[in-house]
Amino acid sequence: MVVNKKIISRFSQYRKALIRFQELGMVKVFSDTLAEAVGVTSAQVRKDFSLYGISGNKRGGYQINGLLDELQAILGKDKIQKVIVSGCGNIGRALIRYTGFEPERIQIVAGFDDDPSKQGRIDALPILPLDAMKDFVSRNRIQIGIIAVPDSAAQPVCDTMVAAGIRGILNFAPIRLKAPDEVVINNVYLQMELENVIYFVNALTKKPRR
Amino acid sequence: MVVNKKIISRFSQYRKALIRFQELGMVKVFSDTLAEAVGVTSAQVRKDFSLYGISGNKRGGYQINGLLDELQAILGKDKIQKVIVSGCGNIGRALIRYTGFEPERIQIVAGFDDDPSKQGRIDALPILPLDAMKDFVSRNRIQIGIIAVPDSAAQPVCDTMVAAGIRGILNFAPIRLKAPDEVVINNVYLQMELENVIYFVNALTKKPRR
Repeated sequence: MVVNKKIISRFSQYRKALIRFQELGMVKVFSDTLAEAVGVTSAQVRKDFSLYGISGNKRGGYQINGLLDELQAILGKDKIQKVIVSGCGNIGRALIRYTGFEPERIQIVAGFDDDPSKQGRIDALPILPLDAMKDFVSRNRIQIGIIAVPDSAAQPVCDTMVAAGIRGILNFAPIRLKAPDEVVINNVYLQMELENVIYFVNALTKKPRR
Repeated sequence: MVVNKKIISRFSQYRKALIRFQELGMVKVFSDTLAEAVGVTSAQVRKDFSLYGISGNKRGGYQINGLLDELQAILGKDKIQKVIVSGCGNIGRALIRYTGFEPERIQIVAGFDDDPSKQGRIDALPILPLDAMKDFVSRNRIQIGIIAVPDSAAQPVCDTMVAAGIRGILNFAPIRLKAPDEVVINNVYLQMELENVIYFVNALTKKPRR
């Protein structure tokens, strides 16, 4: 299953707007205020929330506190999310040292690499061989994995992750992975992201021929 | 300007399909064959191509050779694209060493960082202070830059890039950059990509409440 990014993006924006409202001292909010802050219709807000059984009060709107708790749970921010990384080369190492995950309650707890020269530790993090993954994942009840291996190794690593019990994968290898449909896969193709920029700069420079 | 990824994605897929057709020994292709390979309608194919003044022949379709040349130019693959990276910490360093750009004719030609301990060279690549950017960019006619600095430094770095003449930016800092509308910006928010995966795994585990 490839993720539909629009839904998560909206929930994430609702959460950020609510945190801002709370900082401003607000206690309650109406769907149209929230809708305006996020740039959607109030009908969309109510529809998104009702999907999770969250309903406001016609007169008083939503209680911000309670709504935030619900959104935190929906977004998986009510607890720390443990993540493993497979492939401890350049990209994997950068992700392991990336400081942007911790504020979002995401914690990388181990790296995996079959290159013995990469095993051991990166900072305090254990780097283990791939055949230790299944045991580690089940012992630590981990559901999320990152793939940062070269493309030729990506499918076998994906298979190992799925067999180990991983249910969601962030994939940086420039291939389309095959996995059971209940496994969530989100692809970040770095070269394609850069190609996008190059294309649009070109398109703006050389005008279409008519 | 934030990029619309759908157009580039289609052109990129047309190109890949045409390369496959060529490898199969084909010389000409009809819009409906190409459409089927890419999963769009043949009207969409003709519309996309006509925007660039490319038209097929009703009887013979498109010449694959000529069409590929046109697409290479549209996608900026008719020449090597030189790119600079600002921020040579974990993510910047990983991008500098990333091997996936070269096959796409993308070449990182310099890094910039104001931390003297990071200046000098990474492998063969020069790492320069930020105030050397303007001169370097104009001397080497560079249009594309990558931002891989912490969020607090991202806006000033963006301003420096724009002042230096950079026209397209791939941004990894988790903020929304402000730039003139003619500057192309593509954001890759790593934590949000991982949050997407976590959200969908949660959503599949805990069913919505009704």
